Amino acid sequence: MTDTALHPFDRAVALQPVAGQPNLYEGHTSQDYWNMVGPFGGVTAAVLLQGALRHPQLLGSPVSLTVNYAAAVVAGAFQVEAIPVRTNRSTQHWLLQLTQADETGEQQVTTTATLVTALRRETWSLTDLPFPNLSPASDFEPMSPAAKGVAWPKQYEMRPVSGAFPTKWDGSGETSRSQLWLRDAQDRPLDFLSLAAMSDIFYPRVWLRRATPVPAGTVSITTYFHTDAAQLAEVGSGYLLGDARAQEFRNGFFDQSAQLWSESGALLATSNQIVYYKE
Amino acid sequence: MTDTALHPFDRAVALQPVAGQPNLYEGHTSQDYWNMVGPFGGVTAAVLLQGALRHPQLLGSPVSLTVNYAAAVVAGAFQVEAIPVRTNRSTQHWLLQLTQADETGEQQVTTTATLVTALRRETWSLTDLPFPNLSPASDFEPMSPAAKGVAWPKQYEMRPVSGAFPTKWDGSGETSRSQLWLRDAQDRPLDFLSLAAMSDIFYPRVWLRRATPVPAGTVSITTYFHTDAAQLAEVGSGYLLGDARAQEFRNGFFDQSAQLWSESGALLATSNQIVYYKE
Repeated sequence: MTDTALHPFDRAVALQPVAGQPNLYEGHTSQDYWNMVGPFGGVTAAVLLQGALRHPQLLGSPVSLTVNYAAAVVAGAFQVEAIPVRTNRSTQHWLLQLTQADETGEQQVTTTATLVTALRRETWSLTDLPFPNLSPASDFEPMSPAAKGVAWPKQYEMRPVSGAFPTKWDGSGETSRSQLWLRDAQDRPLDFLSLAAMSDIFYPRVWLRRATPVPAGTVSITTYFHTDAAQLAEVGSGYLLGDARAQEFRNGFFDQSAQLWSESGALLATSNQIVYYKE
Repeated sequence: MTDTALHPFDRAVALQPVAGQPNLYEGHTSQDYWNMVGPFGGVTAAVLLQGALRHPQLLGSPVSLTVNYAAAVVAGAFQVEAIPVRTNRSTQHWLLQLTQADETGEQQVTTTATLVTALRRETWSLTDLPFPNLSPASDFEPMSPAAKGVAWPKQYEMRPVSGAFPTKWDGSGETSRSQLWLRDAQDRPLDFLSLAAMSDIFYPRVWLRRATPVPAGTVSITTYFHTDAAQLAEVGSGYLLGDARAQEFRNGFFDQSAQLWSESGALLATSNQIVYYKE
């Protein structure tokens, strides 16, 4: 199988172990998921998660992932370091870092992350949030391709239900909430990696709330995974329902809280991020 | 001033620099904030934050703090390592660790954290969540002291408005939401440290939702700070309004999302945590 036979997402998150360094991997940024000044942050989160998921010492599956975007990732090679800091009976704590070589060849940290994985057992369970009562995805039009130079939105089929990307930048915004149906544009069965990436799919709430295109970028994102491999397999390449809103915009930073539901109403992931904005 | 003249919280978060090691501090657990099998997680979060806040290279004030509880902290001495991983023009990214010596004297990681601090400028700002319309704190009775062996709740004045600690464990729960007025029991002006601690003040939502006392403990908490020193000074030792709920309970882990408001309706912090539970 050639490289181009892979799904673009699998190419973007591909890592190669570095010989003799058990916690170290090499990867390469993907133009398919390029954002304005670096890769789509969701893919960077997935790449870091990948470092733990393919680690031979991995225990269980992801519960909580926090990714901190410390500096822009530039096009080219990078390294992922994945360190299992503490392994308990049923949980495991990871430190993850993405680094890139500077002009002198020294690796510099661009992104840090922490991850908790766990062996999960069946317990009493309950969804304590109502599943949004929306018409099916087929009732809504797919978003048209995004701005020039921004590739990643083309990798997703997004069908906004409410809070679509502003078409008039006239300061008329009234809400920070968006609901949309989404899935990979090219069929790919959902897994923890793509779920981590999709948690970052919501454009900055400040653009919606203000209908004003100020500079903005995610500083830190935390995603909680409420699912397992069996449920992910059931979802397959079906639609997810994404729902996101802000709570507080204050002096250069706002938060953004999101839910990702399966089409049948399973709350697969909840995610929060803090986003820088200007002016 | 003797040590006992300090507020119990200041004693609990006190750190001493380790000579010759610029990123390293020593501290000691506090019985005043003891929980069932270790310190109150909020105080552990504050201790880690303290490592950065008193670091000579600190830039700005806290924006985002994630703390991962990897292992129980035992009574006694600990070390906090605070590493400024990346300093940009207006943001700074930190890795923080709390370690304790094992039987052989080797430091073992009990808690990991990441922190983003920033120089904040005045910008367009907006609270995009309604301030809960509640009667003042004086209309509600303070909670009575908690179970034996658990000291930390005595350090807070908590006046539940709704979702009070269950008094009957009969499986009758109907909601995961709690609202309460809170402040330090002994007057202390609010700062980033106490705000970080108070973000973890909400007892496990699974106890409320199920009215069943299953074992539960925070695995990871993320707090976003939407405030600054001037606003904190205005709040002083006044009440905060805490509001917390769960979204998803699933196979051993649930999430808990919270807001901390000032009495005058400023949203000071939003916080999320993922909590382990049994059965």
